[in-house]
Amino acid sequence: MSKAKSYAALSATTPLAPFSFERRALRADDVNIDILYCGVCHSDIHVAESDWGPSNYPIVPGHEIVGKVTEVGSKVSKYKVGDIVGVGCMVDSCQHCSHCAADLEQYCDNGFVGTYGFNDLIDGTLTYGGYSDHIVVREKFVLSIPETLALSKAAPLLCAGITTYSPLRHHGVKAGDKVGVLGMGGLGHMGVKFAKAFGAEVTIFTRSESKIAEAKKQGADHVIVSTDEAQMQAAAMTFDYLLDTIPVQHDLNPYLNCLKVDGTHILVGLIEPMEPAVHAANLVMKRRILTGSLIGGIAETQEMLDFCAQHSIECDAEMIDIQDINHAYQRMKKGDVKYRFIIDMKSLKNNE
Amino acid sequence: MSKAKSYAALSATTPLAPFSFERRALRADDVNIDILYCGVCHSDIHVAESDWGPSNYPIVPGHEIVGKVTEVGSKVSKYKVGDIVGVGCMVDSCQHCSHCAADLEQYCDNGFVGTYGFNDLIDGTLTYGGYSDHIVVREKFVLSIPETLALSKAAPLLCAGITTYSPLRHHGVKAGDKVGVLGMGGLGHMGVKFAKAFGAEVTIFTRSESKIAEAKKQGADHVIVSTDEAQMQAAAMTFDYLLDTIPVQHDLNPYLNCLKVDGTHILVGLIEPMEPAVHAANLVMKRRILTGSLIGGIAETQEMLDFCAQHSIECDAEMIDIQDINHAYQRMKKGDVKYRFIIDMKSLKNNE
Repeated sequence: MSKAKSYAALSATTPLAPFSFERRALRADDVNIDILYCGVCHSDIHVAESDWGPSNYPIVPGHEIVGKVTEVGSKVSKYKVGDIVGVGCMVDSCQHCSHCAADLEQYCDNGFVGTYGFNDLIDGTLTYGGYSDHIVVREKFVLSIPETLALSKAAPLLCAGITTYSPLRHHGVKAGDKVGVLGMGGLGHMGVKFAKAFGAEVTIFTRSESKIAEAKKQGADHVIVSTDEAQMQAAAMTFDYLLDTIPVQHDLNPYLNCLKVDGTHILVGLIEPMEPAVHAANLVMKRRILTGSLIGGIAETQEMLDFCAQHSIECDAEMIDIQDINHAYQRMKKGDVKYRFIIDMKSLKNNE
Repeated sequence: MSKAKSYAALSATTPLAPFSFERRALRADDVNIDILYCGVCHSDIHVAESDWGPSNYPIVPGHEIVGKVTEVGSKVSKYKVGDIVGVGCMVDSCQHCSHCAADLEQYCDNGFVGTYGFNDLIDGTLTYGGYSDHIVVREKFVLSIPETLALSKAAPLLCAGITTYSPLRHHGVKAGDKVGVLGMGGLGHMGVKFAKAFGAEVTIFTRSESKIAEAKKQGADHVIVSTDEAQMQAAAMTFDYLLDTIPVQHDLNPYLNCLKVDGTHILVGLIEPMEPAVHAANLVMKRRILTGSLIGGIAETQEMLDFCAQHSIECDAEMIDIQDINHAYQRMKKGDVKYRFIIDMKSLKNNE
């Protein structure tokens, strides 16, 4: 066991505050990681505040983790002390179902173990995330961070990155495809970068004319103001893919109408309930596809990190100290972040 | 011009009644067909009664047509007098868009010309369907009926057949796949036959325990009573495909839950509005696909007819005289038909 310092929510209504707990002792296949940076995902807020049902408190959020290996278990072969590594949304899965065998741990038949708020498969203890000084994770779920990636900007790739990379890859987005990205937040801006890197012609859909310049700065080839009916009508039947990162309820029908025959609308957010209702005609009459995607498997996450290193893709982020986390949450709720907060975890020492 | 006898609806509220009109004179690429049999599709009722918006009356329904060629235009090369041929839901399309070029006339960018209630692309006259003694159709949209198909049962293949064949083929249903068929009507029972012929293990979902025996008789390997929550829960995560032929509003969520990761739910009906709302989580958490499909292209329809001939697939049908059509509509509205009515068009002569 090792004493860990962190920031935790003790209930749905209490702000995050300093919290000490015991990390488990290293198992043979575990890696101990001193955390350097941790990205702040909107899920962190949802779970800290029990938006998705009652959470298992205390919640130490954080599943976009970059750090340095300080100790390895006796059977660890892939990592050694000093390696720069990452941990994303998952820290374990059953490893024997067909999806785990297919490197799709995120769809594990027995349910993956989330990086925080879940129960460890072996000893049942609660998992605690990356808003802490160190973490102990099974080697299989640890990623290697390529040397050429800017360390201070790599963390959000572990969730915002893989969540957008995976569906674009799975559906085979390629040069010449027309891809629309819905939503200009942490996920959306990564989606733009990946779609561009895959050679697609990328359009950002935004509700506000005031965001056009920002959308262009993100690298979009075109911008459509989704509240302008004329623009939406002009876009009818022109897109191969829509990557929908909008995190709140919205009407899918005007967007579906922008897809070509056989076009694909990919949801990465849980927009429940999905109202107003989707019109079956928008699917049937043009053989369109509505689908979803959840993060990505461990092997694909490594592939994504390597891809980012090769193509100099990084997350646009604002560095904060852990002491600013509650303020950061407030700003995220207002959409006031370009495009991800990353916590510099050495700031934890400021409390000493 | 040639005088045609038919049954037509003159308004949304009048029953079908005898109606005479002029078919256009044969163009160079036209075929004249004496109609032997015409299947009765639920769409016939919807259009006759303006369920999908105001129809262009008079409506002579019928888009499941089998007949004999009696005359061909000067440039017709594929058919000769005496050939047994079919006509389905479409009689023309633009022929120059990318979808027409790809044998996907049903998704023609400029809109296909339906067999009835549409306007001819050349002279603008209203199209009249198969509840008539003969029809004049552009050669390109005429299908060849294989000799080994039972003539009297082939007609419904032109709509009920292709509507279920096309999506199963498009999505690559193959031996070993687990396919669920929702709905036990004209479309559903064809879906079962095709899925079985493709080697799939087929389950019929029915709302009523009383239909289990009938479902087995249709060739289903298994039957699930969809109103039995325990059966639906037991089926969770077990299907590769669901072919949804239910023609009325229904909750998709319990069915989506039956799909494996990457499973596909295919709608062939316009169930508007699609409520209760689909849960995004049912798509996102398992990367499931919700899609739709509309009839099939002309080349694929020919492929389907040839497939049916090779595999002895025919529609289960009840033969009626045209004079019984209004009664047949009443029975169809109650679901009282196994599984398709076919009109023996020689009965038109009974009125003389």
